[in-house]
Amino acid sequence: MSSEPIDVDIISSAKVEGTHVYDDAGENLGSVDHLMLDKRTGQVRYAVIEFGGLFGVGADRYPIPWAKLRYDPTKGGYVALLDKASLAGAPKYSMDRVPTYMADFGRSVDGFYGIDD
Amino acid sequence: MSSEPIDVDIISSAKVEGTHVYDDAGENLGSVDHLMLDKRTGQVRYAVIEFGGLFGVGADRYPIPWAKLRYDPTKGGYVALLDKASLAGAPKYSMDRVPTYMADFGRSVDGFYGIDD
Repeated sequence: MSSEPIDVDIISSAKVEGTHVYDDAGENLGSVDHLMLDKRTGQVRYAVIEFGGLFGVGADRYPIPWAKLRYDPTKGGYVALLDKASLAGAPKYSMDRVPTYMADFGRSVDGFYGIDD
Repeated sequence: MSSEPIDVDIISSAKVEGTHVYDDAGENLGSVDHLMLDKRTGQVRYAVIEFGGLFGVGADRYPIPWAKLRYDPTKGGYVALLDKASLAGAPKYSMDRVPTYMADFGRSVDGFYGIDD
């Protein structure tokens, strides 16, 4: 059993939601809207980043695998381990057409980020 | 690769938050306020249930291990695999004294639910 305080290891979903996400050049990509998690195991699969638009209208949402995000305390936000140019080609959807994460969409996300599931 | 649609397996944190939790007798225990997740792995450790109080004032919060919750589609909510009497003795905190999940509090939660971490 570690003597480390557990609070440094766990975080509230309420705190993750709304946190900014930056690319590795420090550019603001958007913020976390919500997480997508495995119902059975409770494993977070994607942080869904809202990006662009005005007050959420017209914004695109990008599901990014949790493993592709690192928290940067100096920025007070996550750094996505991919650049903004790469994100331009990443699987996304608009708020008015939320996908059901059917096999094809999930595969396109996992495939894009090289996640083997 | 499964041919099952992925949407039956994953769920938004925004949908989990606010969902009611029942005991195995069908009594309403409260609702999920937020999730606590492992920062590094993205594994959800606890669903924090808000229970009692009036409009959240005076409510107690109970971190319940994700593995102790099963979604029941007929109830439209989670069933906690413990009864209300057991919950009365479970680790909790009041909203005005949120613990930092230091080692002792985390251990008391995991110990109570028999989670070996």
